[in-house]
Amino acid sequence: VSPAGASLVNGEPQELVSIRDRGLQYGDGLFETLRCEGGAIRWFDRHLARLRLGCERLGLAPPAGPLLRAEVEALVKGAPRALAKIMLTRGPALARGYRPHGGERPTRIVSAYPWPAPAAGPFRLELSPVPLGCNPQLAGIKHLNRLEQVLAQRAAAGMGCDEVVMCGSEGEPVSGSMSNLFVAHHGEWLTPPLTRCGVAGIMRELVLALAPRAGLAVRVAALTSAQLAAATALIVTNVRLGLQPVHCYQGRPLLVDERGAGLQELIDGTP
Amino acid sequence: VSPAGASLVNGEPQELVSIRDRGLQYGDGLFETLRCEGGAIRWFDRHLARLRLGCERLGLAPPAGPLLRAEVEALVKGAPRALAKIMLTRGPALARGYRPHGGERPTRIVSAYPWPAPAAGPFRLELSPVPLGCNPQLAGIKHLNRLEQVLAQRAAAGMGCDEVVMCGSEGEPVSGSMSNLFVAHHGEWLTPPLTRCGVAGIMRELVLALAPRAGLAVRVAALTSAQLAAATALIVTNVRLGLQPVHCYQGRPLLVDERGAGLQELIDGTP
Repeated sequence: VSPAGASLVNGEPQELVSIRDRGLQYGDGLFETLRCEGGAIRWFDRHLARLRLGCERLGLAPPAGPLLRAEVEALVKGAPRALAKIMLTRGPALARGYRPHGGERPTRIVSAYPWPAPAAGPFRLELSPVPLGCNPQLAGIKHLNRLEQVLAQRAAAGMGCDEVVMCGSEGEPVSGSMSNLFVAHHGEWLTPPLTRCGVAGIMRELVLALAPRAGLAVRVAALTSAQLAAATALIVTNVRLGLQPVHCYQGRPLLVDERGAGLQELIDGTP
Repeated sequence: VSPAGASLVNGEPQELVSIRDRGLQYGDGLFETLRCEGGAIRWFDRHLARLRLGCERLGLAPPAGPLLRAEVEALVKGAPRALAKIMLTRGPALARGYRPHGGERPTRIVSAYPWPAPAAGPFRLELSPVPLGCNPQLAGIKHLNRLEQVLAQRAAAGMGCDEVVMCGSEGEPVSGSMSNLFVAHHGEWLTPPLTRCGVAGIMRELVLALAPRAGLAVRVAALTSAQLAAATALIVTNVRLGLQPVHCYQGRPLLVDERGAGLQELIDGTP
């Protein structure tokens, strides 16, 4: 892999952007976190589809998929495994204030990171003291307004856990701060809908698509905090963690569904 | 005034920041928009107090007031009037992911802008199709997660109006996208509480503090959308606009309370 920190800005090796960039000024943009293996991006079409949905919501021109893919793959060439991040902003502001001018030229930022060492010890989950603000127009997409997740992870550090469950404005569990959530419930796995808040994760999508082939019943269903509190098994997902069994929720040990490993294998084998 | 675009980053003339800056990556930071007159910042102590409250909420070290003031005033020296913007982020990421490392060094960005020409014609207000997500931990402060305001102003451009009223998750009117809102109601002016969402504007604070001396009854009170729809007069406020009478709400002409001009004079004369 190129050294940690290798980056391209609009295709040029570069580590800097303008302070006028609306990505910095307002969080006016989107991002994707990609798993790269053997120099290739996994599940790129799904990432691109989410990025394009985000562009539609924000009124940005959709990026060219082949160009994005080539830029990422140039940075992770030769690495058995790496993480990459794409940021796409509306670009440097052409006028002061929130209102887009309309003529902005998007900023495309691609960076590679070494694959992180897996955390040692049991995976600990707690309930976030930070809620998720609800806005259907921002729900599902992976935009750059992530202060709630930052504050939730700051709280997680204080609680000495790996991840926290964040709830929407009705107190309903929605997702982790950096992951989606699956809750064992009467022989099924349930994952909350993401129509009011939360990010529609690629690993969540893969779980929903492939679970039946692994003999698992998984569906999208609203959860109550009581169902969460009573669950005997929990899984959190993202492209880095894959299907991560939660070993301990609010200090309570949980069971691990061994069928998760089979589903993981199936997902890992899916282009 | 220094040429439009003059900026300091951590005290150095500079127009660029790292793509690793958490302000860009997550909107992990704060900002202030300042009115400068005769080379001095107006109402600086109030801006500094809000910035410090934001730092407390986000867990950032509070900035040194005299340094910030000196940097802004260096950029606006000699200008009869100018706008300045301060951004304060958690700084370049020291680790991947939302969780702050704790050792980050904040990025302090100060920029000057020429004073904008006032908009010609009547001030038109509409109702935003974009809601405000509610999160008490982010309410009141002026953080860098402003995508809702960007989308609202994008919608405002489409509707051909200057500003839009944004509502919270219960449908309650909260504020403009770039301003606070005052609604005439039975001889009083009401402005919504900002405990669940919205930004506690400096001009709003000044209006609340000084209105009695101008013979105006103003108080903080929750508003319904019906009260907004029935209002005969509306004012929006920010440090750029001052007290801006709304001439037309949803196509309906409104009255202008002439006592607003007296209050404006009082505020303009207040250090």
